[in-house]
Amino acid sequence: MRRVFIAMLLALIPVLVWGQKASDLVYTDARELMLINQGFDNTELYYSRLPEDMKDATRKAVWDLGLNSAGLAIRFSTDAKAIGAKWTLLNNFNMAHMAGTGIRGIDLYFLDENDTWRFIGTAQPNGKESSNLFVRNMSGQMHDYMAYLPLYDGVICLEIGVDSSAVIGMPRSNLLTKGSRKPILFYGTSITQGGCASRPGMVYTSIISRARQQEVINLGFSGNARMDKSMAEIVARVDAEQYVIDCLPNCTTQILRDSAYFFISYLAEKHPDKPIFMVENVIFSYTLVDVKSRNDLIEKNEYWHQLYKRLRKEGYRNLRYIPSKKLTGKDYEGSVDGAHQTDLGFLRMAKRFLKYLKK
Amino acid sequence: MRRVFIAMLLALIPVLVWGQKASDLVYTDARELMLINQGFDNTELYYSRLPEDMKDATRKAVWDLGLNSAGLAIRFSTDAKAIGAKWTLLNNFNMAHMAGTGIRGIDLYFLDENDTWRFIGTAQPNGKESSNLFVRNMSGQMHDYMAYLPLYDGVICLEIGVDSSAVIGMPRSNLLTKGSRKPILFYGTSITQGGCASRPGMVYTSIISRARQQEVINLGFSGNARMDKSMAEIVARVDAEQYVIDCLPNCTTQILRDSAYFFISYLAEKHPDKPIFMVENVIFSYTLVDVKSRNDLIEKNEYWHQLYKRLRKEGYRNLRYIPSKKLTGKDYEGSVDGAHQTDLGFLRMAKRFLKYLKK
Repeated sequence: MRRVFIAMLLALIPVLVWGQKASDLVYTDARELMLINQGFDNTELYYSRLPEDMKDATRKAVWDLGLNSAGLAIRFSTDAKAIGAKWTLLNNFNMAHMAGTGIRGIDLYFLDENDTWRFIGTAQPNGKESSNLFVRNMSGQMHDYMAYLPLYDGVICLEIGVDSSAVIGMPRSNLLTKGSRKPILFYGTSITQGGCASRPGMVYTSIISRARQQEVINLGFSGNARMDKSMAEIVARVDAEQYVIDCLPNCTTQILRDSAYFFISYLAEKHPDKPIFMVENVIFSYTLVDVKSRNDLIEKNEYWHQLYKRLRKEGYRNLRYIPSKKLTGKDYEGSVDGAHQTDLGFLRMAKRFLKYLKK
Repeated sequence: MRRVFIAMLLALIPVLVWGQKASDLVYTDARELMLINQGFDNTELYYSRLPEDMKDATRKAVWDLGLNSAGLAIRFSTDAKAIGAKWTLLNNFNMAHMAGTGIRGIDLYFLDENDTWRFIGTAQPNGKESSNLFVRNMSGQMHDYMAYLPLYDGVICLEIGVDSSAVIGMPRSNLLTKGSRKPILFYGTSITQGGCASRPGMVYTSIISRARQQEVINLGFSGNARMDKSMAEIVARVDAEQYVIDCLPNCTTQILRDSAYFFISYLAEKHPDKPIFMVENVIFSYTLVDVKSRNDLIEKNEYWHQLYKRLRKEGYRNLRYIPSKKLTGKDYEGSVDGAHQTDLGFLRMAKRFLKYLKK
């Protein structure tokens, strides 16, 4: 009898030790931790991206996309053995060409002993009110962590959960903390916003941020990076170390004619000592055969390059140019649909941007 | 008046020339084209993967997954200006950590002038009865094409659509056609089945097939690659050039003890002159911190390696071993959830397998 009892007890141990579930954790409101990669303090939602005083001046489509939490991340430290999240989504949005984990999930990195950020788990979304584990069965050592918020949905509230014996609080390492360095700002399209990374940590802005241990502000607006005047003002307001303008896929040549000169020159005048990168339209793989799209793309890149040369001649010496060549590799395999980048395409773009960005 | 009329007519031309829609195309049943990468003729569905005479001997979970069209592709040629597809799905399946395009979409490659397969577009799923374009605005040149079928759903019927003036038919190039070379066979898990490629062409079996211009048979069964005896018989029935066994993530050490010796030795005896690769469990990124999973993984890989050495000693000289080191790169960024590979992880695994596979 005793032997049976001990056997039963032993059989239970793995469950007790390893069986952590999201519902067993103790949760902390992420507002008590550190939010990074946000350009403005006066946002409409705690986890949104545009300054509220610019709401009336901003097109509704842009404003609504600004409520998506693309690029934002939570920094914290804990000695937890298991970590999870509970979060409430704004839209519970869905797209056929992007994984739910990228659209509305959260992924977690820890800072290893060499100060490298290592991906260790994803909290998969499971409803407007989502709740899931990132990782479990850890040894309980104190580590710094970073959790990336959804790319194509908004977050109304977020709690980070740890096992009941653990402590959780502000980051212990100063690396990649709010304001520790001036940020890099990216203004761009659906691609910049993260379409179609498998998880939020794999949009190029996140990859670049980890590689440089520097905040990167993601102002990507799916389908709507049209260089609006109000956006020139919003971008210029951020006191960034450098600016990357990657908006061509959303601009027709006509939009470029109407808006590009003002947008770039305005920004260059406001920040005459900061590098401003004008990025060409990445070569979409379907332009290998789609004649109309190829001609459009060539025309836009040509216009953009001429504009760059003209502005340089006019004295905007802080402008830089990033050609499309090599941006996404040579095999045309980096996208899900010919245009939107997968983790493969994003890693390639990030590596390319890292070569151009000022050290 | 005439000028207005001409202006109106001109305004219409772009619509007429470029405005191809899936509903405007003329459709051909894909059974009139060429199906490749299928191991058996007597399948339950035209687009499924297991031989019907083995249905009773096969676990239901495995059988049901065998109805998914993972790895299958349609080869054809056409001089179309636009190409699309209509397809009826078996389950209209969904998962939060994989894009719908990978689960139940179809992607298209064309054979370029250097005999390289180039990705040009994805028909996104939009319901149990799906219908979408791959690409449009092409010049109307004759090309060879390949369309990959859904990875995590079944296809009940499939039609390929082209603009009404185009011809469509069997491939013109002999490259990657049915039976042109003996195939490679992969037996494996959810990863082998394509979890979590963004689109079907990016599972490692598809990448390897394009790189070698050789059919690859995908016998990946999500969560169910447990080396069942019936599966040993099914795998051994295929007259392949080489065999890759990548099933460890679905096997406990106990399953390995119970089934691995029989499975591998049976296959090695049936095909004594063919290389058979035993692949280690890829290093899941969460094992950086998840102690239990790390220990399990190390134990399984160690058991697998000992088994390989034992079988080699017993005279199975056609066995080869693929260690996990470098299989998915060194940055731990290749997965969506720590385990399932993205296009980034799959490309890395494919490149690694290509180094090992017999030329």
